[in-house]
Amino acid sequence: MTTLLALYRRPEGGDEALATFLRRYHAEHLPLVAATPGLRGTRVQRVEQALGGDTDLVMITAMDFDDRVALDAGLASDAMRQGGRNLRDIAPGLATFLVLEDDPAAGG
Amino acid sequence: MTTLLALYRRPEGGDEALATFLRRYHAEHLPLVAATPGLRGTRVQRVEQALGGDTDLVMITAMDFDDRVALDAGLASDAMRQGGRNLRDIAPGLATFLVLEDDPAAGG
Repeated sequence: MTTLLALYRRPEGGDEALATFLRRYHAEHLPLVAATPGLRGTRVQRVEQALGGDTDLVMITAMDFDDRVALDAGLASDAMRQGGRNLRDIAPGLATFLVLEDDPAAGG
Repeated sequence: MTTLLALYRRPEGGDEALATFLRRYHAEHLPLVAATPGLRGTRVQRVEQALGGDTDLVMITAMDFDDRVALDAGLASDAMRQGGRNLRDIAPGLATFLVLEDDPAAGG
């Protein structure tokens, strides 16, 4: 399994800006994610706490694909391209995208 | 679902230090994680790439619990306390721990 992990930092502008981002993320962005070809699953989680420290992260979304080839095809799709444009509108500079591969030594 | 997400940064010392950390993580740390009461699942993933940028993260492990009460009980267990001591030995200062909650607006 190959996972695209999106980590979202807290927007400037306090709780109101955060609420606006989250509302638009659900209303505008997640439907584009859901339309991505090859997507096997999506998990949206809110960051509640950093143990023993602080974090500027507020949300982490994991998007699973069968493998890196499927992820690359998904990234090149119209849905993900629209999703990228949408994010530059609703969360400019707030997202980091990591490509993860299941650790074979850990049994996936 | 409540998830304890551990994000591991690259140790100093190059590829050899990374290989040593990964070997000890699998041999010493993951068995302690697996012995944690209330743990519903563990997913270990390697960070292959940051899209459009760099990252100092090399591995991300997601540990799922039924809820925050179960996570807190797990954190207080002997297994996780031993795991914490082990991490201070094999990866001092390299881990960040986030508590995540499934986003109800996204349907979990």
